[in-house]
Amino acid sequence: MQDFDFSPWANAQCQQVEQALAAWVGVDAPAALGDAMRYAVLDGGKRLRPLLVLAAAQAVGGNAAAALRAACAVELIHAYSLVHDDMPCMDNDVLRRGKPTVHVAFGQAQALLAGDALQAQAFELLTPDGAEVPAAMQAHLCRILARAAGARGMAGGQAIDLASVGQQLTEAQLRQMHRLKTGALLEASVLLGAACGQAWAPALSALHTYGQTLGLAFQVVDDVLDVVADAATLGKTPGKDAANAKPTYVALLGLDGARALAQDLLAQASAALAQSGLGQTQALLALAHQVVGRSH
Amino acid sequence: MQDFDFSPWANAQCQQVEQALAAWVGVDAPAALGDAMRYAVLDGGKRLRPLLVLAAAQAVGGNAAAALRAACAVELIHAYSLVHDDMPCMDNDVLRRGKPTVHVAFGQAQALLAGDALQAQAFELLTPDGAEVPAAMQAHLCRILARAAGARGMAGGQAIDLASVGQQLTEAQLRQMHRLKTGALLEASVLLGAACGQAWAPALSALHTYGQTLGLAFQVVDDVLDVVADAATLGKTPGKDAANAKPTYVALLGLDGARALAQDLLAQASAALAQSGLGQTQALLALAHQVVGRSH
Repeated sequence: MQDFDFSPWANAQCQQVEQALAAWVGVDAPAALGDAMRYAVLDGGKRLRPLLVLAAAQAVGGNAAAALRAACAVELIHAYSLVHDDMPCMDNDVLRRGKPTVHVAFGQAQALLAGDALQAQAFELLTPDGAEVPAAMQAHLCRILARAAGARGMAGGQAIDLASVGQQLTEAQLRQMHRLKTGALLEASVLLGAACGQAWAPALSALHTYGQTLGLAFQVVDDVLDVVADAATLGKTPGKDAANAKPTYVALLGLDGARALAQDLLAQASAALAQSGLGQTQALLALAHQVVGRSH
Repeated sequence: MQDFDFSPWANAQCQQVEQALAAWVGVDAPAALGDAMRYAVLDGGKRLRPLLVLAAAQAVGGNAAAALRAACAVELIHAYSLVHDDMPCMDNDVLRRGKPTVHVAFGQAQALLAGDALQAQAFELLTPDGAEVPAAMQAHLCRILARAAGARGMAGGQAIDLASVGQQLTEAQLRQMHRLKTGALLEASVLLGAACGQAWAPALSALHTYGQTLGLAFQVVDDVLDVVADAATLGKTPGKDAANAKPTYVALLGLDGARALAQDLLAQASAALAQSGLGQTQALLALAHQVVGRSH
């Protein structure tokens, strides 16, 4: 951490991602659909997943063009999941990143379609014509992202979440739910970055552990923030978990217990990076500190 | 047509597709989500898109394992689009293939997630581990399917459809809407099959024309059936287009005019196959006849 200046690195990466997203998302879509897609994706979000992709790709000396595409693709999957998650039949949320949610701004039908189209565009971004990204790498990136997004990943986690409302879960059950719902895509971000280059098996395994641990830490912190933060800082409606009787780490472990778990996971993620044998892991380490130390 | 016995061929292909779908769809998904995914896909539908993939793959002597995966993948995209399209915020339909729609049977939240997970699984099916399907072919199949499903394909067509309710469209506008909404995926089915093998550019171009023409014919016949068929034959609620003030070919050209257009498109599709230079096009020709002659 000490010898790596995170902010300039992150700002430079984010600028690249924003430019790429602005150039790609919803372009050539029918007007209203393109507007809804761009509203869902542009000018918002911390771009944590894209930063993880780019940091992991840099750690393995990966193909930069492929990494930028993968960074944007995983953000489209994340953005689509938020659009659908906010809809009245799911969480019925009206505020996201400090602005009205997509279905409030564009109507439910358009929000549904925009989410669907964003998922498809993620796979379009990973499969460009030409030789910029080798075909085998394209296939590998699609494989990682599809698995992380689907029924054995993010969508599966959301289904478990739906079924768990009002239930008392054990820590193991809660961990499994979040491993899929939030963790799968964060972990996939790290794997996507790694797939843009060549890494030895021990390094890949360490990155895998880092990604899993970070994904879990993210959710633990999310549960803490849902209790302690206000709407202005959080950019979304706080206190929703308790109101919806959703199981959380705070409910299970208490506020101090949840905070201690987050610190423990940060230590595990750092240890995995230290054992990876990779040289350029400062950005990944800094991102883990960001995740655990964030206020929104 | 005369020297090709369509039914045995189609039955054998369908059996293979049904077995593969039953083995793959929603497996290892959380219980309720997997049930909704399988309900949406299994034991229903004419499997037109899978049959087009398999027929096109056979016409070019393509990789059979890749073709079966592509056949199932395109069916998952089709099935997810129906699940989302039937939801209350879209067409609000309660009957599909003669049974309650997914959101009626499983609730809206589960229907939304099942559709999302089906789209992701389509890309999972196209990107298996191992050497069964070469990586370059996997990437090519993902590229075709993602483009056809997204904002410049099916989802885009649905957005235009949404915006067109109550509007008077020209034939060119109506054709453009359907080219995306229904045509893109039918055309992609043919291209996916072709991508499972090696075909010369003139043959590919002929298959492309065949797919485009067939896609349009399908929609024209759909509009005719919405007027003349009853619910029991159709397996869904008829008369919805008029009730929803949707523009249709029947509204634009009259019943006889729409029927004549369908016959004209059939002749164009047949001519494209005859000019393709490919030997094994009987199944594709028979499928075009099926599309135009169907009663549901």
